[in-house]
Amino acid sequence: MAKQNYRFTISYEGTKYYGWEKQPGRELTIQGKLEAVLGKMVEGDVEVIGAGRTDAGVHARAMVANAFLETELSEQEIADYMNRYLPDDICVREVKKAGDRFHSRYNARGKTYCYTCYVGDGKPVFDRKYVFRAGERPNVEKMRKAAEFLLGEHDFTSFCSNPRMKKSTVRILDKIEIRMKGNYLTFLYHGNGFLQYMVRILTGTLLEVGYGKRTPESMRELLAARERAQAGFTAPAHGLCLLEVDYH
Amino acid sequence: MAKQNYRFTISYEGTKYYGWEKQPGRELTIQGKLEAVLGKMVEGDVEVIGAGRTDAGVHARAMVANAFLETELSEQEIADYMNRYLPDDICVREVKKAGDRFHSRYNARGKTYCYTCYVGDGKPVFDRKYVFRAGERPNVEKMRKAAEFLLGEHDFTSFCSNPRMKKSTVRILDKIEIRMKGNYLTFLYHGNGFLQYMVRILTGTLLEVGYGKRTPESMRELLAARERAQAGFTAPAHGLCLLEVDYH
Repeated sequence: MAKQNYRFTISYEGTKYYGWEKQPGRELTIQGKLEAVLGKMVEGDVEVIGAGRTDAGVHARAMVANAFLETELSEQEIADYMNRYLPDDICVREVKKAGDRFHSRYNARGKTYCYTCYVGDGKPVFDRKYVFRAGERPNVEKMRKAAEFLLGEHDFTSFCSNPRMKKSTVRILDKIEIRMKGNYLTFLYHGNGFLQYMVRILTGTLLEVGYGKRTPESMRELLAARERAQAGFTAPAHGLCLLEVDYH
Repeated sequence: MAKQNYRFTISYEGTKYYGWEKQPGRELTIQGKLEAVLGKMVEGDVEVIGAGRTDAGVHARAMVANAFLETELSEQEIADYMNRYLPDDICVREVKKAGDRFHSRYNARGKTYCYTCYVGDGKPVFDRKYVFRAGERPNVEKMRKAAEFLLGEHDFTSFCSNPRMKKSTVRILDKIEIRMKGNYLTFLYHGNGFLQYMVRILTGTLLEVGYGKRTPESMRELLAARERAQAGFTAPAHGLCLLEVDYH
């Protein structure tokens, strides 16, 4: 029996994980959990390829991954098996057969991330693991102005935590939507790819604009500087969620 | 300085608590946490009276409580103090001065509870601590029919977990709304008061109707039986949330 490529759509709460990517000596990774369950299912080694590597503590509503499996189970049976054995904070939403050439990372055309802040009085009791308590209400108009400078194709080195990126640091960021609804402030980002910590540094920097510590116009020099130290703080992981990955 | 009566509106995630009511030897109760923080604030003993006693694991969006305090802090300062020292899963939403005769339990006219079930495939990753995975989709129409028999003033002994209730077991249940939205099934209950486990036994019994194990009409005999063993299972605590307490 030949191995079949499968595409998975996965939700997870990242709170207790060291992130997506498996790491030696660290059992709690999303990839590690998925590979362990699938390995048990097919009684062999399985490599699960993810569309991206979410950081420790970051959540996902619809991460996409793929893996080659030799199994007689149907798509639904694979999903049911995985959901039975995966912990409660990881769910397989869909399993679909994919062509041999489907690669969840190389074929990804874009990603949507959402960063959520709580800016009200009191505390967000029920969703405290998914929102960052930013403090007072920032100026949304200023943040929107700043966001306009960030849209388009840029070298985002200033917004990358990895000082030794060997590959290109140029990305296209084509959407930043900033919304205030009740006590919640959300930043929705869409782009063709994101550097390490990029969404969190973008969010921290925009918040600093909203709190008057930077001007919207200063985003221009910030991009030109290509230096992480020039940008704002890294917003904490738990406010971030990967919403979607697009393919052709 | 005379003691002033204050009214509190409180949200909490009940997951890790032994319920509202303080109990000897059990530190993790909502009442216990509130009394500890307020006692620290006024440097003395404080008794916090709650509108009801939620069970272990049950949540609340707007529990009402009251306490007499001697303090020079404003209402907002009291709220801020409490939110600073209370754990992340308890939040004081409002503090208001109340008349001396205000008693959160005796003056309560009614309560609204919501019980939430997840009835889809997969798993509810992000709200798994607030919803009960009931299994397959039950028949909503049958549950609604059964609910009609339960409305009104009845002796709810069959729906009470305490076999030795000394006080009256008669309550008025004036609303049961059952809604299916996406993969979520919610039961909204409003009544003038609820017996121990009553909402959870009502929900378990209605689910059994929805799954065809009981008929809607059997609710009539069930009420008449006045025997806990005749009713359905006790739906788990974590799906239950106290939404509101009404006063004149």
